[in-house]
Amino acid sequence: MTAPKRNPKGAPKGTARRQPPRGGPRPAARGEGQRRVVRRDDDLGGDQVEGRRAVLELLTAGRRRARRVVIAEALEDAEMLDAIEQAARSKRIPVQFVSRARLDREARTEGNQGVYALCDPIPTRDLDALVKTSGPAAFLLVCDGVTDPRNLGAMLRSAECAGVSGVVLPRHRAARLTPAVTKTASGAIEHLEFAAVGGIPTALRRLGELGVVTVGLAPEAKRTIYDLELGAAAVALVVGGEERGLARLTRERCEELVSIPQHGAIASLNAGIAGAVACFEVARQRAAARR
Amino acid sequence: MTAPKRNPKGAPKGTARRQPPRGGPRPAARGEGQRRVVRRDDDLGGDQVEGRRAVLELLTAGRRRARRVVIAEALEDAEMLDAIEQAARSKRIPVQFVSRARLDREARTEGNQGVYALCDPIPTRDLDALVKTSGPAAFLLVCDGVTDPRNLGAMLRSAECAGVSGVVLPRHRAARLTPAVTKTASGAIEHLEFAAVGGIPTALRRLGELGVVTVGLAPEAKRTIYDLELGAAAVALVVGGEERGLARLTRERCEELVSIPQHGAIASLNAGIAGAVACFEVARQRAAARR
Repeated sequence: MTAPKRNPKGAPKGTARRQPPRGGPRPAARGEGQRRVVRRDDDLGGDQVEGRRAVLELLTAGRRRARRVVIAEALEDAEMLDAIEQAARSKRIPVQFVSRARLDREARTEGNQGVYALCDPIPTRDLDALVKTSGPAAFLLVCDGVTDPRNLGAMLRSAECAGVSGVVLPRHRAARLTPAVTKTASGAIEHLEFAAVGGIPTALRRLGELGVVTVGLAPEAKRTIYDLELGAAAVALVVGGEERGLARLTRERCEELVSIPQHGAIASLNAGIAGAVACFEVARQRAAARR
Repeated sequence: MTAPKRNPKGAPKGTARRQPPRGGPRPAARGEGQRRVVRRDDDLGGDQVEGRRAVLELLTAGRRRARRVVIAEALEDAEMLDAIEQAARSKRIPVQFVSRARLDREARTEGNQGVYALCDPIPTRDLDALVKTSGPAAFLLVCDGVTDPRNLGAMLRSAECAGVSGVVLPRHRAARLTPAVTKTASGAIEHLEFAAVGGIPTALRRLGELGVVTVGLAPEAKRTIYDLELGAAAVALVVGGEERGLARLTRERCEELVSIPQHGAIASLNAGIAGAVACFEVARQRAAARR
């Protein structure tokens, strides 16, 4: 498929395509989308979604209400923008075209790719409901102090690809689902269930009570992730932040602590990538057990 | 260890610490470092290194000559900058202090973290020498059209952690070792051997002749990377770029084509992360075979 060049000057005269509708709604001012939502304690954000894949997944997954899609005019080579426009129109969601400069001012990430959407925040559940929803073979990701939005976004994207169905985030001391997270997660958040918890150690104890094996990633652990035999059990992978890894109490509450063996000289795997490697190893073990 | 606050105003009077030396050498203008080097055909760049970890590894690995280290004045909380300054001074490499604004102008990445270094470009070998150097259990990474600098940098960092010793890059149609790559690779390039080749398919044929098993990562392959039994053989993992994956001819020349099973709804693992997951799976199989 070849997408038409997205240059309004080349469009037939009289078409309103990719032109801002006259008298249409004004776009939200920078940050307005976030402020408009009354912040509840378990609100993880996620109400401004940026980037093409992320916005398209928001619209096609259809799990939460999108209020408006804003697209930059005069972008070339953008098959995915056509798909976004079509998906929004078919769901009667207002689509607004603004100049690229204006979109870049209104968006919060540099990698917005000429599109963002304002929508309801990501729905959250309590921990027990998250486990129940995930079923007997739950595969959860618990993030302990991941503060870098790009790391969190990358981790969510990889986790979703590896089959993680639910994510546990602390209400405080962690990145919320900011526009940068939504962009990097590339739509993954639309397919993940979330629980926001007061404290990770308490959540880990409760997961244990609910029969979920909690596995913490700790570079200093002697046991490696390859020594685990997870089988098809319900499992929660617990990953730490960029600087300090898992907090002491989190470490103590994990049923297993494992490392990813390092074979090089620098021995500093990026936190997001360590999380991804661990998620796929857990997926491998679970798939092997199901055979 | 607690690093002193990096504020020259707080330093004792008369100390030249973290102050630009008067009459010292002027820093290179933006881009000068790159232009000064005569571009040879197999030159992969790498002569401007940015970011704290990357500069520190450049200095401590000591594989190539650093000509100058440039540090921003008045940065707080920077133990690693102290280590960089110390490493440079012990090797008699000029250290220059400039304002943060000026460093940000001279650096080419936003993530420079207040430091960059000018140095010799990364040395390269020809393919046969790379294989010979790597020994009978060579673990190589072949990048086919990875054009995004951050993806390439992240891939190199993960690959080094997984035990990759040599990297094959095409001379054309790929990211060179730009400052953004050096930053994201976080020092990994100082510990990797590189070969620049005219064409990836020809290189793959030669690798086969030299007894190296070539394994291409292709999302559509029915065989998965977990079905491989690599043992301790010499292996080259072949990874593609963000948009198109492996080129047709590259695909045809790989001895094995494997996928990473996707278990989620979005099924779009980032190229850098797919490379990392594959590198660690190869490392796992090789480690298991050595037991």
